Amino acid sequence: QWMMLDWKPRRPDMLIDPLGLGKIVQDGLVFRQNFSIRSYEIGADRTASIETLMNHLQETALNHVKTVGLLGDGFGSTPEMCKRNLIWVVTRMQILVHRYPTWDDVVQVDTWSSSSGRNGLRRDWLVRDYRTGETLTRASSVMVMMNKVTRRLSKIPEEVRGEIWPFLFDAGPVVADDGRKLPKLDDNTADYVRNGLAPRWHDLDVNQHVNNVKYIGWILESAPPAILESHELSAITLEYRRECDRDSVLQSLTAIASGGVGHLGNAGEIECQHLLRLEDGAEIVRARTEWRPKQGNSFGIIGQIPAESA
Amino acid sequence: QWMMLDWKPRRPDMLIDPLGLGKIVQDGLVFRQNFSIRSYEIGADRTASIETLMNHLQETALNHVKTVGLLGDGFGSTPEMCKRNLIWVVTRMQILVHRYPTWDDVVQVDTWSSSSGRNGLRRDWLVRDYRTGETLTRASSVMVMMNKVTRRLSKIPEEVRGEIWPFLFDAGPVVADDGRKLPKLDDNTADYVRNGLAPRWHDLDVNQHVNNVKYIGWILESAPPAILESHELSAITLEYRRECDRDSVLQSLTAIASGGVGHLGNAGEIECQHLLRLEDGAEIVRARTEWRPKQGNSFGIIGQIPAESA
Repeated sequence: QWMMLDWKPRRPDMLIDPLGLGKIVQDGLVFRQNFSIRSYEIGADRTASIETLMNHLQETALNHVKTVGLLGDGFGSTPEMCKRNLIWVVTRMQILVHRYPTWDDVVQVDTWSSSSGRNGLRRDWLVRDYRTGETLTRASSVMVMMNKVTRRLSKIPEEVRGEIWPFLFDAGPVVADDGRKLPKLDDNTADYVRNGLAPRWHDLDVNQHVNNVKYIGWILESAPPAILESHELSAITLEYRRECDRDSVLQSLTAIASGGVGHLGNAGEIECQHLLRLEDGAEIVRARTEWRPKQGNSFGIIGQIPAESA
Repeated sequence: QWMMLDWKPRRPDMLIDPLGLGKIVQDGLVFRQNFSIRSYEIGADRTASIETLMNHLQETALNHVKTVGLLGDGFGSTPEMCKRNLIWVVTRMQILVHRYPTWDDVVQVDTWSSSSGRNGLRRDWLVRDYRTGETLTRASSVMVMMNKVTRRLSKIPEEVRGEIWPFLFDAGPVVADDGRKLPKLDDNTADYVRNGLAPRWHDLDVNQHVNNVKYIGWILESAPPAILESHELSAITLEYRRECDRDSVLQSLTAIASGGVGHLGNAGEIECQHLLRLEDGAEIVRARTEWRPKQGNSFGIIGQIPAESA
């Protein structure tokens, strides 16, 4: 029961959140943080990029763990995990984007964790427009534990369970897993292949590994520009299969599963399959994306705005 | 005199800044905004990257213009500029980094504008640690006006002067221009060359051009990894000479001007010269960087932190 005594946020100022660092709500089981969308977080469409949304998810997950006092020496690992060389590894992530926020929108991210099977943890996110309450994004991920020395998966030790379980909030997933398998692409099944993708120095995180948010950019590198221009990403499912480091050189493969470039004219929905692999063929990430036609054509306005004026 | 009447921020809530969007201080001539450094803004050293710092500079510049009610339909252009198809173009930028902030640090950015010569505008930034007041970064840029249709430089029209001049704050530059020319590098004078750098989809901004903050990543791509590992960037001077768009393929050239890789062992300061150019030789950006040895060796810690744990 000491867990409950230890419950209160370590820093009382978290409750009022004067610096925008987030706070605990919902009887302590949900972490909430607001983000104002900044000019450098928006892309050619004037809306936040999918990477920006994923960055906000990552940030709130870490801040949640930190705020409840469970952040050991690392990114998301608890003290008992650190003692045992255990780290969290994301194995699957699903994101549904209902509307992309734009510059100066304030998004309110709620996140919580729940158990997933015997040895997994699920984390959910619900992202709303702070001013209107409109749901913008729903996301769900599954993590398992890995020993960072042996790189083998691990059961969740009782001591770690004791740390984490008091903070779980079994509210049901915000994104239902449709159970569809992600097929493996190869040179024959892919419609588009982009070679020679390499991490830049600043793609590396504190582990000198490539952060998993970066993969999305490489995945989209092999999507045809025609789709990126006419459609917006409405859903993505990612399956992380293997790590990648600073010396990796990657290939990005995309197959148009339905809709298809031939049908771009009729402005329908498009589904794509993706694979990010090392040049020796080892799979890094499988993904499926869904695309919907962009609302309206704002390119007339976009053409007028300078890149260099800031 | 109507300018002065129009002075007050359009949105009174700017004065208390509940959403972290920034506010006007110093009799209305300085714009101030706080940023908490987020996990996804830090790199392998656990500190904010230079791109993150530059993003904060860009954001506060835009928010300053917006908050005083001068943002026309565009990124930094005033209404009178928009009428005349005029945009701001950054020609020179100097940044001195005294200390890089780390995750959860809150930085306070102050920015103001002043005149620069007959047809230029200078913008200065002073970045401090919000909690301690320590100066973290000083930066200064010079902008001129360009007609976005003809792509030719323009004088500042009287009507635009009337909009802008009431808001200038001639406090003297926070970074003294040392007047040193940036030499042009070529294949013979460069020590390192990196070819084939191409914008990714999400490097494009609302103008479908490459935002000028992105260039810094490409510049550093040709800096030797040994320097990036042992040293941190302490100063950078950028001269923007030409635009680059989504179809550009770039070369990055670096010359070690002093210090040098042979001297890395003695942990001295290093100065480099850089050039980013198109494959046809056209110059995009010239730069000079200064590097100081990293304080302490935190790589023992860094090695323990997972990339995948968020």
